[in-house]
Formats: sequence, structure tokens, C-alpha cells
Amino acid sequence: MPLRNTLTASLALGLALTTSARADEGMWMPTQLPALAKPLREAGFKGDPKDLADVTRAPLSAVVKVGGGTGSFVSNDGLLLTNHHVAMGVIQYNSSPEHNFIDDGFIAAGRADERAANPDFRVLVTVGFDKVTDEVLKDARGKQGRAYYDAVDAASKRIVADCERDGSVRCSVANMYYGSDFYRIRQLELRDVRLVYAPPRAIGNYGDEIDNFMWPRHSGDFTLLRAYVGKDGKPADYSPENVPYHPPAHLQMAKDGPKAGDFAMLAGYPGITYRHRTAAEFDEQVNHVLPDRVSLFDGLIEVIEAAGKTDAQAKTRYASQLQSLKNNRKRAAGELEGLRRSDAVRLRAEDERGMLAATTGEDARDIAALQASLADGAALGERDLILGAFATQTQLMRSALMLERLRLESAKPDAERETGYQQRDQAMIEGVLKQVQRRYDPTVEKALLTSLLTRYQQLPDAQRAPELDAAFGRTPAQLKQALDGLYQRTVLGTEAERLSRFAAARDGKPLADDALIALARQLVPGQLQREDARKTREGEQLRLRPAYMRALVAWREQQGRAVYPDANSTLRISYGRVEPLSPRDAVAFAPVTTVAGIVEKNTGQVPFDAPKPLLEAIAKGDFGNTADPALKTQTVNFLTNLDTTGGNSGSPVLNARGELIGLNFDSNWEAVSASWWYDPRYKRAIHVDMRYLRWLLAKVYPAPALLEEMGVPAGK
Amino acid sequence: MPLRNTLTASLALGLALTTSARADEGMWMPTQLPALAKPLREAGFKGDPKDLADVTRAPLSAVVKVGGGTGSFVSNDGLLLTNHHVAMGVIQYNSSPEHNFIDDGFIAAGRADERAANPDFRVLVTVGFDKVTDEVLKDARGKQGRAYYDAVDAASKRIVADCERDGSVRCSVANMYYGSDFYRIRQLELRDVRLVYAPPRAIGNYGDEIDNFMWPRHSGDFTLLRAYVGKDGKPADYSPENVPYHPPAHLQMAKDGPKAGDFAMLAGYPGITYRHRTAAEFDEQVNHVLPDRVSLFDGLIEVIEAAGKTDAQAKTRYASQLQSLKNNRKRAAGELEGLRRSDAVRLRAEDERGMLAATTGEDARDIAALQASLADGAALGERDLILGAFATQTQLMRSALMLERLRLESAKPDAERETGYQQRDQAMIEGVLKQVQRRYDPTVEKALLTSLLTRYQQLPDAQRAPELDAAFGRTPAQLKQALDGLYQRTVLGTEAERLSRFAAARDGKPLADDALIALARQLVPGQLQREDARKTREGEQLRLRPAYMRALVAWREQQGRAVYPDANSTLRISYGRVEPLSPRDAVAFAPVTTVAGIVEKNTGQVPFDAPKPLLEAIAKGDFGNTADPALKTQTVNFLTNLDTTGGNSGSPVLNARGELIGLNFDSNWEAVSASWWYDPRYKRAIHVDMRYLRWLLAKVYPAPALLEEMGVPAGK
Repeated sequence: MPLRNTLTASLALGLALTTSARADEGMWMPTQLPALAKPLREAGFKGDPKDLADVTRAPLSAVVKVGGGTGSFVSNDGLLLTNHHVAMGVIQYNSSPEHNFIDDGFIAAGRADERAANPDFRVLVTVGFDKVTDEVLKDARGKQGRAYYDAVDAASKRIVADCERDGSVRCSVANMYYGSDFYRIRQLELRDVRLVYAPPRAIGNYGDEIDNFMWPRHSGDFTLLRAYVGKDGKPADYSPENVPYHPPAHLQMAKDGPKAGDFAMLAGYPGITYRHRTAAEFDEQVNHVLPDRVSLFDGLIEVIEAAGKTDAQAKTRYASQLQSLKNNRKRAAGELEGLRRSDAVRLRAEDERGMLAATTGEDARDIAALQASLADGAALGERDLILGAFATQTQLMRSALMLERLRLESAKPDAERETGYQQRDQAMIEGVLKQVQRRYDPTVEKALLTSLLTRYQQLPDAQRAPELDAAFGRTPAQLKQALDGLYQRTVLGTEAERLSRFAAARDGKPLADDALIALARQLVPGQLQREDARKTREGEQLRLRPAYMRALVAWREQQGRAVYPDANSTLRISYGRVEPLSPRDAVAFAPVTTVAGIVEKNTGQVPFDAPKPLLEAIAKGDFGNTADPALKTQTVNFLTNLDTTGGNSGSPVLNARGELIGLNFDSNWEAVSASWWYDPRYKRAIHVDMRYLRWLLAKVYPAPALLEEMGVPAGK
Repeated sequence: MPLRNTLTASLALGLALTTSARADEGMWMPTQLPALAKPLREAGFKGDPKDLADVTRAPLSAVVKVGGGTGSFVSNDGLLLTNHHVAMGVIQYNSSPEHNFIDDGFIAAGRADERAANPDFRVLVTVGFDKVTDEVLKDARGKQGRAYYDAVDAASKRIVADCERDGSVRCSVANMYYGSDFYRIRQLELRDVRLVYAPPRAIGNYGDEIDNFMWPRHSGDFTLLRAYVGKDGKPADYSPENVPYHPPAHLQMAKDGPKAGDFAMLAGYPGITYRHRTAAEFDEQVNHVLPDRVSLFDGLIEVIEAAGKTDAQAKTRYASQLQSLKNNRKRAAGELEGLRRSDAVRLRAEDERGMLAATTGEDARDIAALQASLADGAALGERDLILGAFATQTQLMRSALMLERLRLESAKPDAERETGYQQRDQAMIEGVLKQVQRRYDPTVEKALLTSLLTRYQQLPDAQRAPELDAAFGRTPAQLKQALDGLYQRTVLGTEAERLSRFAAARDGKPLADDALIALARQLVPGQLQREDARKTREGEQLRLRPAYMRALVAWREQQGRAVYPDANSTLRISYGRVEPLSPRDAVAFAPVTTVAGIVEKNTGQVPFDAPKPLLEAIAKGDFGNTADPALKTQTVNFLTNLDTTGGNSGSPVLNARGELIGLNFDSNWEAVSASWWYDPRYKRAIHVDMRYLRWLLAKVYPAPALLEEMGVPAGK
């Protein structure tokens, strides 16, 4: 495997060359850190980078996956720190009208009083991280397109099955550098997790949606949980007999807090980034994908808002969908705004031009082939966006498509069924079919489909699908007639009609006749065809992207820069510093906020309804040893330039000595586009200052035993 | 007059003692400046303070009243600089659909192309400022209450009449230190004013309502006018024969611009402040007046918004009233928020306690009497607020009250009529009666009155008026019945019915019968009674406040501080420095903005639709000699801690050498409460940087002759 060896060698070389690394950008694999020793030291790190290389040893073994985010152990007895918003489900699960732990917060009176999490809540402790590239690619080599895709998929599934055979761990295969390398990850799955300490909502989520993505921030977005295991030390379901889990390592709370310019480091499970995508993909994202998305969402939002103005019931039924459309629209617009502000398309194109000029031979040919495959997909982008919304932003249409697809998949052996239609997915499908009643109104659904399909009717011929044209015609009048007919005739609006068909579909049996089911039967074959074409493209890209990555690594090497793999929900480390933000002309935000800001923002109304005990404690000014020595008051949140993305929620932030100084919980609005482009002027991450946590536990909602357990007993 | 002499002596003493003046607070009378020489010098002023003492000599004689604001001459040929928003009427008057000077801006092709302002536009040049205290108070001495009020009023009117006798000047009497001193002001009234240069709206009002009161700001809120006089050099109505006015002085544009910390000084005509009001008045303002105002406005806003939801015509008719109510509501809420943030009530009370403890004898007794009179007025505050809105926030009710009052006043000789009902006011009254049609809807008016009178019905007995109880009853049911009856029967909804009664009223003749006219006949006597009571209280306060001012001046003297009179639309000078603003925790705003912010804010949509030539010039980066040497780019606006209030719009901002560096046009939201309380943490004024004006005239919308005329020819 000479090519991959070259990649590995280049990476090492790139790292060695990094004399003045841009310390801010980078979600590094722990194994890369020893090679980053020099820039790490220059940035201020006081420890030994070698200690950070192994995810199964201290301190990284203290960092775990929690729910959709990250957490870290902070005591030898399994005490686990994560965000309030990451643990929200646990708090909610334990709340009742009598004991409203969301509003009032919760402090366990002792270990016996710790409350079991919802049964599906999981904490994953990584116990193995091994390269399996050869095994994954063995059968794929020499193949192309769909065959390449299927070979990688099959090998990955085999590796996971082998790994999970003895039932002790949960396994997965991670794809690094876009198909260049594959790693097998082994994780302990802790299933008995308990709620130990949660601040009131008005602290844990102070400012809510208004302050979301905003800096300056004043949120105590943290919660303490505890992991339990069976008496044999192995993961177990909840039982009162279980004992606290002794993690392989835990983090130590710092005694001091951060200040501007201080070194900072963060470990966590960032979800997905696109930093190493091609210049054409950047162009496509900025000039088509994001504007198309904004425009499509706008159309749907308009439909729902117009309906809500005259129909109170429709307003209620579509409130949650509207909220989600608005969030998605806001995110897409923010990403677009940020990428434009950073001039990312031009900069990425210039960068790639340099890279391509320096790339020759087989890699150059592979990159050309990759570009062609990406262009094929991009040419169908708007259609796929519309058809995606067609199948997800509707209720009856979605139900019909889902039922028909379930019927088809259920005819195969379970292992061969498409993800999402296997036996273990059936409960989820049933849930979707049941909730239709609370979220459906025929007039609104027709209006949503009219918005989507009008958009579809305006697509150029190359993006059209014959079965859709057949079903909905090519003019507004035909569309109206088709939709009116379908929704007048279908019986899927009745729950029993959906559920009886669900029973048939999951056994692979024919479905009782219905207008929308008949339509789905007409549409699903096209859907499968498009899916196959997509997988074929993805297979080609999986095969060809490693050439792009090799060229990029070689190019970065010339620039004296190392390359990290794009984020993929595996454990990564970022390092940088506590840093202010100047997002606009004449605006400068300090990197540390104080309790004064809580009082300033307090209106007494949700979401700025600071609890009385907090306001009183602030007024009293008794901050003890958690006060900042320079600011002479209690700090709340701080800002770093650490490289983060979704999934980093709950990531521990460490100082130069590896001690815990913060808890990551958000990033700033200007950084929404950082999933594609890291702009050092604007990319910041927002953290809870651990001194705020300590002060709350010491003086406001006291939990002295927990402070003791974390090694930071309350000061005077 | 030993008491007033004491005041004058104390003022001088206070100034002499001012060794480390709080340079930021103070709207000083020019005559006070020589005594402020030391603090002025310490603040960085390089000129001779004596030169600033005489409003009729250079440089202050360059500063004039323009429309509702301030302006300054910037050439010997009468070129006059003021705000775009101050000159908006002039621009509007000269605009047409073919020549939209609002949107496109205007540059006169030469003097002959300068456009005459609307005929009622005036520029006032102060040519005399003389103390007339003795003359004003001569007859008032020994009197009390209403008699004191009437004596001061009569003396003032007499002085004005004498002064205006030869027709060459317009005169007024200004009350300084709340009745302690009176000054006769003589002003030339320039009536031929022409539009010379206006930037497009998207420069002159960039950001409009969204950016109003905001910092950082990016507005080119300036316009150049030119004053003309007859060939004899005297003020004249517009004529093509007129010649440019040669002002007694004009300001010189600075070559350099401001930077943080620089000395700055401003001259202008601030309207009204309440800084020296009593602690009880502060308490009343914060704990009653402003909350009552917010609550009353909220009630009216709710009524209009509710009506607008179901009735499109009502929505249109009440749009302007709604806008104005919302502005007033916002201002009141902002003032309340600011006074609370500054803890003004407590601080003023502490300050006054110290003052009262140091005050004895006749002054102490007068102050006690003043407090009693103020308390009498305050006890009726909510009623007066409601009845004020009753007569101003309605259309037919207001018309009826106005007609009946006009009838009563018109029976007296013109000179004895109440201000607002003299012959010269009749055109205005007719205008009000005519515009009813465009602003009236019976359902909405009844709802507004229901909101107001329901509030009235809940007042305690002490605030009630028998004629209102008689007219509207004391229960919601009686109120509804009364309003329904009145609005069903009245014919005042018809314009001809109003105008025929107007014709009768202005001749003092009886008015044709009508339900609302009959009601007005019933209500106006009570109104007159309340007016008399108010004037009696005001007379007492005019008599007694000087004692309070003497005590305050003596108290400030002990504190080493001088006292300026509260603002009263006379020429004042503030001095301070260019200063950043940190309005909230972790937020810091730089005091100078740059063109980068214009681009950042630009959305292409009103009000952030920066003109293409501006965007292109910014992109080109050709800033020549107007670029800031440190920032290396073009500046736009800057921020000082200068003491300003409404009326200071268009005030010139000068540097330490008295050169023009800026043009005042707004203040920040946090400073809305500064009319009562100057908080150095939050009080800022916002100015156009003269380098931005020079750059626009040099490179973007060129007017080289004007730059030449102002002595700053365009650089390379």
C-alpha cells in the first residue's frame, strides 16, 4: 500500500516541519499530538504531549461520549461533568409537576438520592482505538463505484460484528481523511447513569434562545451525573445494587481560572466538518446549496405562518415543525453569511489551485475523476434537496413512502435491509406513524407540497424524474388537481388505516389500497434508483478522495502545516488560547464575563429570570476563593479560539497543566460557518468557567460533598 | 437683591474652587467659561477660555439655531453645516418624483443652483445676550402663586415686545437657574436659506430607526446649507437678488481627526434637562411618572394594534399615532431603565440630604414650601397624564375641546388669549380639524377613550373631577353607555361640521349644537380651573426654586464643583473627550468607527442599503489625506462623553485648538436618562467625523468647490 504509506509519512513530515503552527485551527487525533510537541510547547502547554497520544490512558480516558455530546469524569467515583443541555433528557425524565427539577434544579442529598437517567441514556468510554485500514479496504481495492462502496460497507459491518461478539463492548469503524484510513473504536457502554446535581433552568439555560450563539454569555450550562456499574465492575442496567464506576482516569479541577491569552486545550467528540472539501464543493455550498436551502425553508415557513394566521389548530399542529424550519433556516443563513464574510470560496480556490499545480501522476488523474463525480452529484443538488423535503416535511406523504419502503425492505433478510428499515427500527417507524395526528392538517400539507413541487416543476429537464412528472404534471393547474385528488381520496389521515398497513408492511405483505399508497408504489422505485446512483457516486468519492487528501497533505507540508482529519465524531483535541472577539467594526468583546452581566440581563421574565438566591448571592458579593483576582468579582463564562463543532458540547477545557478550567457549551454566531472554514478572526468557543460552578456549589446552591469529591473544597 | 447677588457670588466661588472639575458633566453658559479656565486647560483645551465667553463674538457667533437643532457657519460666505435630519424638511421640500434629493442626495452645480428652503425654515444668529433679571422680577417681588407667575409672564412679554419694536431682531427671555436669573436674547432671523449639499438618504440616515440611539454607528448625518440676505446685508425673504450672508464668524475645519482620549468641545442649543430637580421630583419621575407613562402608552398601543389586526383601514389611519406612541413608550422605558441603572433616585436623595443639612434660614423655609408645592402637583400627576392623553390622543374629542376653548379665548383681546389660541394659531387649529379624516375611526377612538377613562375611573377620589364623573359615570357599564351615545350622536366626524363650528369659534360666537360640543362645554371649565391651579403652583415654584438653587450652588461649592443652569434652549458649551463606551459586562465599543462597518452592515435593503458609489469607493480604498493615520482607513463616526440633549443635533464638535472635528447627531441608548442624570459610565454623544464628510466630498460625491470654500481642498 505505497500510497497510504506516503500519506502517513507526509503527515509525520508535515508535523515535523510545523515550526510556527497556527495553533488555533485543528481538531487533532490524539495520536498526532506527540508530533505537535513543538507548537504545543510554543502555545504554552506545560505537559508532555506523549501523554495525550493514547485515548485509552489518562488523561484522555477521562473524556467520554455522553448523549449527543461529550463529558468527562471528575472523580474516581464516576462523577461525570457535562452540559445542562446535554443532560436535559435526564433532568426532564426525573421531573414531575411536584418535583420540577428543570425549574428548581436538583441536588442529590447523597449517593442514595441520585436519580436514575432515562433507560436509553448512555455514556461511552473508549477502550480501544486501532487502525484497520487494510482490513476495511482489502476487498474494495480494484473495485469502483457502488461495488467499492458495498465492499467498504460490508467489511466495516464485519469488523463491528466480530468486535461486539463477546458482548462486552460496543464497536464502530471510523473513516479518517475521507477513506484514507479506518479505525476500529471499542467503547464500554455505561447504562446506569444518575443525576447528581443540576442548576435551575434559569442558571443552566440563562438566556435560552435569545442568547443562543451569543457572546457575551452568562450561562451555568453544566450538570453533574454519576456512572454506575454492576458489582463485578461491568456495565449494567440500572440497579440499586450497582456501585459507582471507577473510571480509568479523571480530570482535576484547576484552582485558578483563565484570563485573556492563557493557553487552553479541549478534548471531545466533534461531529462533522467539511474543511478539507474541494474548492468546487465550497463553491457549490455557498452559491447553491445554502441559498437553495434558505429559499426552500422560506417557502415552507411562509406556508405555515400564513395558515397559522387564520387557523389556530393548524398553528398549534405545525408549531414544532415551524420552529425547526426556522432554526434550520437561521443556521443555513448564518453559515452562508459567515462563508461570505470570510471570502472562503475564493481563498479555498486559490489554495486548491496551488495544490493542483503541485500534484501530478495518478493522484492528479484521481482528483480529476473525483471532481467529475462531485460535479455529477452537484448537478442534481436542488432536486435532491426538494425531494428530501418532500419525504420529511410532510406527514401523510412521508407515511405512505415509509410504508411502501418498509414493505419492500421487509421482504429481505434483516441484515440486508437498508439502515432505518431493519427490525430494530420498526418501533421508531410506528412512532412516526402515530404522531401524525398531532402534526397534520390536510390544507397545510397540500400547501407545503404545492410550495415544494412548484419549485420542482421549475427545475431544468436534466434534474427531472419521470415518475414525479407523471404523478403531479408539469403545470400549476395539474399539480393542484393531483394534490386535491390525492388528499380527497386518501384514508391515511386515520391512524388505524396507517397502523393496519404498518402491520402488513413490516411482514413484507401487500398494503391495502389507498391513493397515497398507490402514489408511493409509483414513486419508490425512482427513489431507490436515485439512492443507488448516490451510493455509486459516494463509492467513487470514497475511492478517489484519498488522492485529494494526499495532495493536500503534501501541499500543507510545503506550507509547514500539519493536517487533521475532518471531524467524524471521534475523540479529538484542540488547543489555542483564551481570546477576545471583535466581530464587527468598533465592537470588542472581552473573553471573560462576570456575574454583573447576569444582573444586567435579568428582567425577571423567562429566559432572563435569574433565581432569587443567585441575585442575592451576587448582591452579597461573597465570592471567596472563586473570585477572579484581577476582575475582583465572580466570573461566569469565557471565550477561547478553540476549534470546535457540534458534538463538542460538554467538552472539558484544560489549562497548560492539564487541569480543568472550563466546560464547552456553545460557539458564537460568527462561527456557524466554521464547519467549513476556520476563520481565526471569528471562530470562538464559549465555556462555563469552572470557578462559576465551584461558586454555585459553594455559596448559592451548596453541595459541599461534591466539591470535596472533586478535590476543590469550598473556600472561606 | 442680596439673595441673587449671593447666587452670582457663589457661582463664581464655586468655579474658582473647581480644582479637579468633573470635566464631562456640564452644559455651561459661555459666560461661565473664563472661570472654568483651569479645568478646561487640564482637560486639554489650548485656546483662551475668555474667547468663549461672548456668544456674539467669534467663535461662538458661528454657532446658530437651525430648525429644531443647531448649526454652524463654516465659511465666510454663509455656508452652514447641520445634520441631514435637521435639514430633512429642506431636502424634502426640494424633492420631487423626478428629482428625488432624499434618495439621491443633492450637489448644487454652483451658487445659482442652490435651492431655496421651505419658506418657514429659519436660521437664528444670536446678536445679543443680556441679563434682565431685575426688569423681569421687579413687579413679581412680594407676590405669590398665580400673581407671581403672571407678573413674570407680563414682564417677559413686555421685554420681548420692546426688543422687537424696530423689527430688526427676534427676541426672547430665557429663565436661568429656575427663575434665579433672566436673560434677553436678541437674534437675527435669516429667512433665505438654501440647500447646497445633501448626501443620499442611505448615507445621511444609514441605519435609520434600527441604528437610532445605537453605537457603533455609521451615518453621514450632515447637510450643507447657505444663508442669504438682502443686498443691504439684512435678513430678507427669498429672492434671486439676495447675496450670501457674511456671518460674524465661521469655524475652521481641522486637518486631523479625533482619537480616543482627545479633548473635545461642543456648542449648541440643548433643549431641556432636569438635572437640578429635587430628590422628590426624581423619585416621582422614576416611581410614578415614567411607569405611569409606559403603562398608559401600552394601553393605547394595545388598542390600536388590536384594531389594526382586523381592520386594514383603521390600521392605516392610526399608523402614525401608533408609531409615535411606540417611540414615546420606548423613550420613557429607556429613561426609566437608565435612571434605575444609575441608581439616580438614591444618589440624588443622598446628595440633597447633605445639601438640606447645610441650609438654614429663609432659604430652608422656601425650600420646604417648594417641596410642598411640588407634592401638591405630584399628587395629581396620574390624573393630569390621563387627561392630557384624553385631549391629545383622540380626534373628535380633541376637536370638540379645541373648538370650545377657541370660542372662549376668541372672546378676549388677542394679547390676553392663551398661547395656542391667538390669531396666529388659528391656521394650525384649522389644520388639526382638517386632518381628522385621515386619522380617525369611531371604533378605535371609543376604544382609546375606554382605555384612558377606565384608568381614570380607577383613580382615588382625591384625583377625580366631578364633571368627568358626571359625563362618563363611575363604572365600566356607564362609561360604555356614555361613549356609545356620544359617538352615535355627534356629527363632528364630518369635516364641514367641524369647519363651520371653527368659523364660529374663532369669532367667539356660539357653536351649533352637537353631542361632543355639549360635552366640551361641560368639561372645559374644569380644564380651565386645573390650568389655573397649575399656573398657581408654577408661580410658587418659580418664586421658590431660586432658594433651592442657592442651596445647591453653596453645596456644590463645598464639593468644589461649579453649577451650570439646566438646559433651556440657549447656547451652551460642553467639554470632555473622545471616549469609548462599555455599556454592559464584557462589551467594549471603540470610540471611532470606520467604513468597514458600513460594508458589514450593508444588506442592500433599506435602511442598510449603502449606495453603490460609496461601496465602490470603500472597496477601492482611496482615502487620501482623510484616512486615519493609526487605523489606516477612513473613519465615519466618533463618540465623546460630551454633555448633550435634544436640540444639540447639528452642534459642531471642536478640538483643543477650536477647530471643527465633528458634527453631533445622536446619543446612545444608555444615555436617554441623561436629561435627568449624567452618569459618566454611560453618557456619550455620537458625531460625524469631519474626515468622513471631507472624503465623501473629495472622492465619492465630489464637491471640490465646497471643500475649497471650507479651506480643506481635496488631497491626493
